[in-house]
Amino acid sequence: MRQSMMFIPTLKEAPKDAEAMSHKLLVRAGLVKQVAAGIYSYLPLGYKVIKKIETIIREEMDALGCSELLLPALQTADLWKESGRWADYGPELMRLQDRKKRDFCLGPTHEEVITFVVRDQLNSYKKLPVGLYQIQTKFRDEMRPRFALMRGREFSMKDLYTFHANEECLDEWYKLVWQAYKNIFNRCGLEVKVVFSDPGQIGGDVAHEFMVMSEVGEDTISYCNSCDYGSNTELSNLQVGDVCPDCGGSISIAKGIEVGNIFKLGTKYSKPMKATFTDKDGKDKPLIMGCYGLGVTRTLMAVVEQNNNNEGIVWPEEIKPFDYHIVCFDVKKDEQVEASMEIYQNLRKMGECLLDDRLERGVVKLKDADLIGIPVRITVGRDISEGLVEVTNRKNGKTDKVKIGEIEAYCSSL
Amino acid sequence: MRQSMMFIPTLKEAPKDAEAMSHKLLVRAGLVKQVAAGIYSYLPLGYKVIKKIETIIREEMDALGCSELLLPALQTADLWKESGRWADYGPELMRLQDRKKRDFCLGPTHEEVITFVVRDQLNSYKKLPVGLYQIQTKFRDEMRPRFALMRGREFSMKDLYTFHANEECLDEWYKLVWQAYKNIFNRCGLEVKVVFSDPGQIGGDVAHEFMVMSEVGEDTISYCNSCDYGSNTELSNLQVGDVCPDCGGSISIAKGIEVGNIFKLGTKYSKPMKATFTDKDGKDKPLIMGCYGLGVTRTLMAVVEQNNNNEGIVWPEEIKPFDYHIVCFDVKKDEQVEASMEIYQNLRKMGECLLDDRLERGVVKLKDADLIGIPVRITVGRDISEGLVEVTNRKNGKTDKVKIGEIEAYCSSL
Repeated sequence: MRQSMMFIPTLKEAPKDAEAMSHKLLVRAGLVKQVAAGIYSYLPLGYKVIKKIETIIREEMDALGCSELLLPALQTADLWKESGRWADYGPELMRLQDRKKRDFCLGPTHEEVITFVVRDQLNSYKKLPVGLYQIQTKFRDEMRPRFALMRGREFSMKDLYTFHANEECLDEWYKLVWQAYKNIFNRCGLEVKVVFSDPGQIGGDVAHEFMVMSEVGEDTISYCNSCDYGSNTELSNLQVGDVCPDCGGSISIAKGIEVGNIFKLGTKYSKPMKATFTDKDGKDKPLIMGCYGLGVTRTLMAVVEQNNNNEGIVWPEEIKPFDYHIVCFDVKKDEQVEASMEIYQNLRKMGECLLDDRLERGVVKLKDADLIGIPVRITVGRDISEGLVEVTNRKNGKTDKVKIGEIEAYCSSL
Repeated sequence: MRQSMMFIPTLKEAPKDAEAMSHKLLVRAGLVKQVAAGIYSYLPLGYKVIKKIETIIREEMDALGCSELLLPALQTADLWKESGRWADYGPELMRLQDRKKRDFCLGPTHEEVITFVVRDQLNSYKKLPVGLYQIQTKFRDEMRPRFALMRGREFSMKDLYTFHANEECLDEWYKLVWQAYKNIFNRCGLEVKVVFSDPGQIGGDVAHEFMVMSEVGEDTISYCNSCDYGSNTELSNLQVGDVCPDCGGSISIAKGIEVGNIFKLGTKYSKPMKATFTDKDGKDKPLIMGCYGLGVTRTLMAVVEQNNNNEGIVWPEEIKPFDYHIVCFDVKKDEQVEASMEIYQNLRKMGECLLDDRLERGVVKLKDADLIGIPVRITVGRDISEGLVEVTNRKNGKTDKVKIGEIEAYCSSL
């Protein structure tokens, strides 16, 4: 991809209201742009990373035997009245009327719709279990949108719903999804702790949250340094210096960003909405349900919060937007342009390349390259007259002069 | 993928209000399910096809040098007041207020937001041209939602916006996108005619629509049988029996489904919204814009409308949901189950496979297989005791008995 055409509007200054490092970097690196409070546009570079996160999510969900679908954002009040949440949900639920004055809401979550979609269809134990997920835009009218993608009013989530004939089957899947979530976050370069939580507005008996430790987190968490155990300090007596019973690890306390949550819903939706199946014993019973949320855009935010240095973002391996960043220092010099193009054509066979062919000053380009954080940078500058380029490792800053004929071998060895 | 887990709720009967064949088949084959008037859920099989259509769109847009981003669905009234459309747009625009009583709408189209996103950034001729597209859910409160995905109130569109320093550059890109659209529709198995159209609510000087000829189309079109020329009959004098001037082809008249539309917007949005750039001559000028819509879910509908027979859907090659459908006729027979699993494992190396492992009667499975229309079906039934399966070509119905060891070679030859 040529950078001159990609629209990566980098900025020298962060927005004045940006407190979190991720907020500053997401805006400065041209990954997102605010359109209204808590409402963002995902610009090409940011959206490219989001699509990589989505690919990881799909791979892990599909590996469990789950299928992807897409439910509507516009939901009828009728469905929410069936579950009782039309009355229960507060002003976070965005409500509107259509031209015929019928009530709708914009889905912050999709338990009602999915229950409506499967009822009458998943009507026999023979058709269970089933897992259905979507990656979709959600709406929640937050009182105080903050930290850019952390508390947004329009955001992207993956939500999975599972349907079972009995509790044992739900328990088994709950553990499988738990592990899949750990895989997803690890592949995104995030370390998470799993915290027992309050089911809250979603409902059900048991729920857990997946937390990324960060100073801009909103909850205080006690967590074990040796395993994935964590606990909200309001729900736990564990103190710093204690030892975690199962693994013998020691306890730390920190702030956590919630990037995922999983719930054993049981029959909370299937019972009032009459989603029943005929069991082996010939009796009609409500479906046993689980639901599992994962914040896609919030994961992007958490990744940037955890992976940066003074100069900008340092992307984790699996979600880097490009493999190689080829910077043509001065596009007015034919020799540099020709060499850059040749390197671009060759490296494209090895991975995804961004070619900085902009009519910009070279020093600006190098600062931008650090800011957007592609792992390997090849700078084509004055040394090209001696057949040399500079190859820089974004993570440790190490720069080597490499002969033009040896770039591919050098990059392979990184 | 195992069909027992995929949730493909096929139906014997079409909904009573379904008139169009595509509406009947989309619902009966378990591809979509209506949630409210004009609002659909895309079930796993339908969504799988949609993702294939999206892949084709992305490939053709990226080949033009365009970049993908994602703009918000929630748009502030302020932006729409800048363009003047807040007052102009009728009741099709879904309006709502947030908790602080500020006015918003749900985007039916994104000219205002994209102009907001690029202004102040695309501020020099050096940064032009740029093409930015998204694949996104749109909202339009249709008076009469109809034909399932044809006139929906929530639907998916690809919208591309291009920005130029002069009219010549816009003209050049307009032709490139025109060709890309033809590629996209052809790859989806659709034949289209291109019709000069009225810019209407989007605005601009010149606009064209891409039409799929169909008896459920909403516009009457004169079109040439030899080239892609077409014209709305209200705008043209061409009659059946006439000859098309440029290519000598003859004229037919038919109904058309609009699957794409392209507009030379000029400065209709950039001027009132003050999105300007500094040109070579040092003067500030409004950006010259183009916009290009393509109905993703409507394309799915048009494909099904054009590609079916009495028994069900017949998928075009590039957007078929699976390559092979392996039907285990009776899952209570161990011999059939074992052979089906073996064939499934082998054919997975050659393409995407759906394995019908459901506890259903064999004849029901074969009817469902015809309905969902995967191109090649391998039926594992009684003949397996002699080492034989039936391989059926969905398109022409031709069935051959094939030895189990020769299935892969046979399928490769199809």
